[in-house]
Amino acid sequence: MSLDRVLNATSVAVVGASRAETKRGFQAIRTLLDEKFEGPIYPVNPKEQSVLGLRCYPKVSDIEGPVDLVLITTSAQTLPEILLDCGNKGVGGAVVIAGGFGEIGEEGRRLEAEVVEAAGNRGIRIVGPNTSGMINVKSGLNLVGLHQVPRGDIALMSQSGNMALTLITEASVKSRKGFSYYVGVGNEADIRFHEYLEFFQRDPGTRAILMYVEGMRDGRSFLQQAYKTSRKKPIVMLKSGRSATGQRSAGSHTGALAGMSEVARTAFRRAGIVVVEKSDELFPVAETLSSLPPVKNNRVAILADGGGHATIAADLLSESGVEIPPLSEKTRTKLREFLPAAASVCNPVDVAGGADADPEIFARCARVLMHDGQIGGLLIVGLFGGYSIRFAESLAFVEEDAAHQMGKLVAECKKPIVAHSLYNHARPHSLDLLRYYQIPVYDSLEIAGRCVGALAEYGIYLHSYQAKTNFVFDWGHKAKPRGNEIIKVVRQEGRTVLLETEARELVGLHGVPVGPGALAHTAGEAVEAAASLGGEVALKIVSPQILHKSEAGGVRLGLKTSEEISRAFSEITENACRHDPGADIRGILVMPMAASGVEVIVGTKVDDQFGSVILFGVGGIAVEVLRDVSFRVLPITPRSAKRMIEDIRSIRLLDGFRGRPPADREAIRKLLLCVSEIVESYPDIREMDLNPVIVHEKGLVAVDARIVLKESK
Amino acid sequence: MSLDRVLNATSVAVVGASRAETKRGFQAIRTLLDEKFEGPIYPVNPKEQSVLGLRCYPKVSDIEGPVDLVLITTSAQTLPEILLDCGNKGVGGAVVIAGGFGEIGEEGRRLEAEVVEAAGNRGIRIVGPNTSGMINVKSGLNLVGLHQVPRGDIALMSQSGNMALTLITEASVKSRKGFSYYVGVGNEADIRFHEYLEFFQRDPGTRAILMYVEGMRDGRSFLQQAYKTSRKKPIVMLKSGRSATGQRSAGSHTGALAGMSEVARTAFRRAGIVVVEKSDELFPVAETLSSLPPVKNNRVAILADGGGHATIAADLLSESGVEIPPLSEKTRTKLREFLPAAASVCNPVDVAGGADADPEIFARCARVLMHDGQIGGLLIVGLFGGYSIRFAESLAFVEEDAAHQMGKLVAECKKPIVAHSLYNHARPHSLDLLRYYQIPVYDSLEIAGRCVGALAEYGIYLHSYQAKTNFVFDWGHKAKPRGNEIIKVVRQEGRTVLLETEARELVGLHGVPVGPGALAHTAGEAVEAAASLGGEVALKIVSPQILHKSEAGGVRLGLKTSEEISRAFSEITENACRHDPGADIRGILVMPMAASGVEVIVGTKVDDQFGSVILFGVGGIAVEVLRDVSFRVLPITPRSAKRMIEDIRSIRLLDGFRGRPPADREAIRKLLLCVSEIVESYPDIREMDLNPVIVHEKGLVAVDARIVLKESK
Repeated sequence: MSLDRVLNATSVAVVGASRAETKRGFQAIRTLLDEKFEGPIYPVNPKEQSVLGLRCYPKVSDIEGPVDLVLITTSAQTLPEILLDCGNKGVGGAVVIAGGFGEIGEEGRRLEAEVVEAAGNRGIRIVGPNTSGMINVKSGLNLVGLHQVPRGDIALMSQSGNMALTLITEASVKSRKGFSYYVGVGNEADIRFHEYLEFFQRDPGTRAILMYVEGMRDGRSFLQQAYKTSRKKPIVMLKSGRSATGQRSAGSHTGALAGMSEVARTAFRRAGIVVVEKSDELFPVAETLSSLPPVKNNRVAILADGGGHATIAADLLSESGVEIPPLSEKTRTKLREFLPAAASVCNPVDVAGGADADPEIFARCARVLMHDGQIGGLLIVGLFGGYSIRFAESLAFVEEDAAHQMGKLVAECKKPIVAHSLYNHARPHSLDLLRYYQIPVYDSLEIAGRCVGALAEYGIYLHSYQAKTNFVFDWGHKAKPRGNEIIKVVRQEGRTVLLETEARELVGLHGVPVGPGALAHTAGEAVEAAASLGGEVALKIVSPQILHKSEAGGVRLGLKTSEEISRAFSEITENACRHDPGADIRGILVMPMAASGVEVIVGTKVDDQFGSVILFGVGGIAVEVLRDVSFRVLPITPRSAKRMIEDIRSIRLLDGFRGRPPADREAIRKLLLCVSEIVESYPDIREMDLNPVIVHEKGLVAVDARIVLKESK
Repeated sequence: MSLDRVLNATSVAVVGASRAETKRGFQAIRTLLDEKFEGPIYPVNPKEQSVLGLRCYPKVSDIEGPVDLVLITTSAQTLPEILLDCGNKGVGGAVVIAGGFGEIGEEGRRLEAEVVEAAGNRGIRIVGPNTSGMINVKSGLNLVGLHQVPRGDIALMSQSGNMALTLITEASVKSRKGFSYYVGVGNEADIRFHEYLEFFQRDPGTRAILMYVEGMRDGRSFLQQAYKTSRKKPIVMLKSGRSATGQRSAGSHTGALAGMSEVARTAFRRAGIVVVEKSDELFPVAETLSSLPPVKNNRVAILADGGGHATIAADLLSESGVEIPPLSEKTRTKLREFLPAAASVCNPVDVAGGADADPEIFARCARVLMHDGQIGGLLIVGLFGGYSIRFAESLAFVEEDAAHQMGKLVAECKKPIVAHSLYNHARPHSLDLLRYYQIPVYDSLEIAGRCVGALAEYGIYLHSYQAKTNFVFDWGHKAKPRGNEIIKVVRQEGRTVLLETEARELVGLHGVPVGPGALAHTAGEAVEAAASLGGEVALKIVSPQILHKSEAGGVRLGLKTSEEISRAFSEITENACRHDPGADIRGILVMPMAASGVEVIVGTKVDDQFGSVILFGVGGIAVEVLRDVSFRVLPITPRSAKRMIEDIRSIRLLDGFRGRPPADREAIRKLLLCVSEIVESYPDIREMDLNPVIVHEKGLVAVDARIVLKESK
């Protein structure tokens, strides 16, 4: 359902309208009048005749004209009755300010569910509850009671009213940019992040989306929408609550190995979102991405006047992964033509005082650098804008000319320029000119550097977009009939855990190499199976009642002779009976011992926020001690699979550590894709572990497979 | 030699004085006049009669009165002659602006050495060269040509003129603080960082020292001085050039395992320096530390109005290691008395709109929190200062009253308060009042959080100061006569590498457990030695010519029977002869095989900047693949030794990983201290490796010891 009647409402009622200046029900109406909202405004309060000169109605259904949106400023308990009345009136949406819902616990959650259901039945969409309100800046539909919100092309979603206030203030004070919409997302009880996102993607007045998020109800739908939106418009997000999130312990063994916030961060990035870690970078990054073309090739030039700023800027960009390539001899020659001898024409370019008497030199340098095909963007750091302050007032005109020249280069070359100036605080006209040309200017080197980093990150994303998936499972499409049969049997027997033989067969159907193996029912069969396998073998109990095989004494490894095998068979059987006298022993699995290689683990689990995720790590201390694992939200692409492998710190363990041959990374990549396909094929699967998988120089073998199904409904 | 005649000069000459306004020789004199420098100012230029109304002298020695300091603005080549003349005049110091010295390569380095020697012979101390100058703000001795430097109690040292300009501008625009001195340290050709530091430590007008460093000539002297200074006055430092430094590869095997910048960072912190990573945090952290008492117990309360700011602030402090403890029931009860029901009285305390009509509530909360004995400091975030802007103008007076109350709490409780306000840009009087009481106010949550982090870090340092060393070796004091003898023999034989037997004996003298071992000269002796040792043994060649024993086939492990031992003895001897027919074989070392345990490595090397450093890591993939090692500058204390062990990421490998017994950490700590003592005892040692050391549940044994001496002079 479109959010048009909510975010572009043409008529609005304020329930809880008040004559008391400190009340929200007064402020909202005053702001709507001040901001010249063009549609009708209907105060609603049975106790008042009029508010601020507007006729007051006892209830919403008493209003004669149509009502798109209702702002409800009364308490949580009043909601059900008001929504009933709104439903009768045919209202399209409600903005619910009150707290006292999901955020206060069980009782609140019940009330929230009741309210959402009541609204849903009547076709009313809800913003909030527990929100500071919403603003359509263009139409003057300002339900927040906040004046002078600068108008512009950034759509803002926030789960904190004060962070919204911070960002709006920052935009007013420090930039020439502003907002198309503001939505206080609140508890997300009805309208979710992804629905707003979809609306902003379609809105022609929005060029970028800025988000402050504390928690998210439906992460997967959000990722799916973000994946589509981010290729059209940049999305910038700060996710707070990291310290608490980090402590949250995940359910299953493998999931517990790393804080789930790492999953979120990777997933957001994979969906093309620019994730910001610091609140003071949030608005600048949105400003920059909404104003400028991205850096297409991750290669940036730095233009400085003085070594200190140049060095710090180079540190910053290097640390964020942006390349600062050496300049071509051609470009260096061009720069040398007009720069003084003391100047450095490497990258960073340091004019070394060469602009003290002639700041136009910045424009000349910028022109050369921006026209260099190797360079995808420019970061100017230092004193520009302040030469007139520091040296001679008359230089102001020269700086303004230079600003015009540099400003035009952005459109001419379709490459971004970001500027740092230590004279930004003085607001010289030349810097305002740069902003006029969409070149943002910051007084922090770190923030300017972060913005360039964001332009490069977004540029890389757009470039690689085609190789990504949209996080949508094509459930069951690739399932094998035999696979469905296996799961059916497990369900019929009332189990959720597959036997190892079943799991091996299922993953084998999809191309996971599990090696040979035979189910023996007698010691004789085991010996016979071992003989046909050749070499040393392992024996493992197969019984629905014995889930932890090793602990039940149900595993024997490295058996050579017939005697060893027979003895192991009897011992395992005895141990199993001792462990659970009622155990249904389906047999004993006889497998060859895998040749030595690098042990890796691959697992999947279901994350509360994002659904199925996959994990990869190198077995042993890297996973168990250093928790060095990588995660991705499923499904994954060949590219993500490759990245997952490269993401682990202990990657060198795959490269032939201590004279061992290198492990077959391509086989691991294929394995990760197989696992992704298996989860996609069988929606019943809750979690899956291939641990260990032994990787050889050529190929690999999963020597243990475990699959757990979702509880049946 | 004291720097008084330089930094507190009472008379100054300007060589290269000029009538041209754009020249440094003009600007310097104009600034000295403008800043009302009280001593005599002597322009020097053979071509001029007067500059700015002052008589001009042909050369320095022509000046009648005494000259403490000379500013030399002429080119590098003119230096030797000018210094000769200054020497004749008895000048105390020279500030050398010119570049073209050490920073341009070999030729420059020669000229620099020549200049330093010439000056040294004549008792002249040099600031620079390649410096932007220096300023004594109080006396008006301003040789930088920069006007309106705010006066205050922060001494600034910078290796970038523009970073100095940035910091000075920031102080003027955003704070009520200022500077006592500025020194452009330049190439540090003569006066080094540690000498300035010592001067600022003694200067009564300086409360904190702020440093921007790109490189440092004598890191160890600096650490030694910083260790002394930091307990009296806080030192704040930004070290740039990290990205390049990170790439620098260290010489010896062990040193190459990690970027040396990690050594620097740890060493600076251990010397009590607050190391800042971001240039926009540099001035704020110095401002805060120069104004406020540190947080003594690492426990801070956050006071907010709104969940967003509170959550972000909690993330920031948690991530920087500051505790945000839950509040006592007593404190919570006190807060509940006046806070609205919606407020949160946990930590963060969130007044939740309770201050909208009465911002004095902030002062009441602050009073309760600051008087809580559990709380060591307070971070206020959000809207304070802006209630009068956001809600009603009359609240300005209430905010000012609250500011006075909060300001007085700092002195009353001897605890710091740092504030963030999103209305800082509007410069409300209430925030200026906070600054008057030394409470810094920032518009960035990150910067405010970083400042609280710095107060906590410095508080912890001062608290633990007694347990630290001052990086001074008491060379040779703990040497053993037998140890000196061993080294003497090595020297006499013209060697730099000790034989394994020598290294084992030497480290054994100082308490390093090396286990038993015997040198056998025949297979029979080897068998006999093995018998007396019992169990399996290892054999290793001992020869000055065979440094890489394994590669030369000179090692055999796990030998059980007499036959195996005899055979191994012959093979090793043959391999050695094949490897180097001229090898002088001193015998074959017979050692028992160490019981299994956790392998660790300990090494020392000499770092260019800091001298001897020690390295620790857990052997195997943690060191070899993950480069997970910790470093300290030697000598170390018991506390540093403990920290070194705790610093490695793979620490859990020592805690009984996979059912093994835990490793004896106390024995490792003792080993690190022994190694520190050995390096201190024998100044001849260049590097040392104990690799591997096998650590058991109780005790440890170093199964291989390697010591290399410095090249003899």
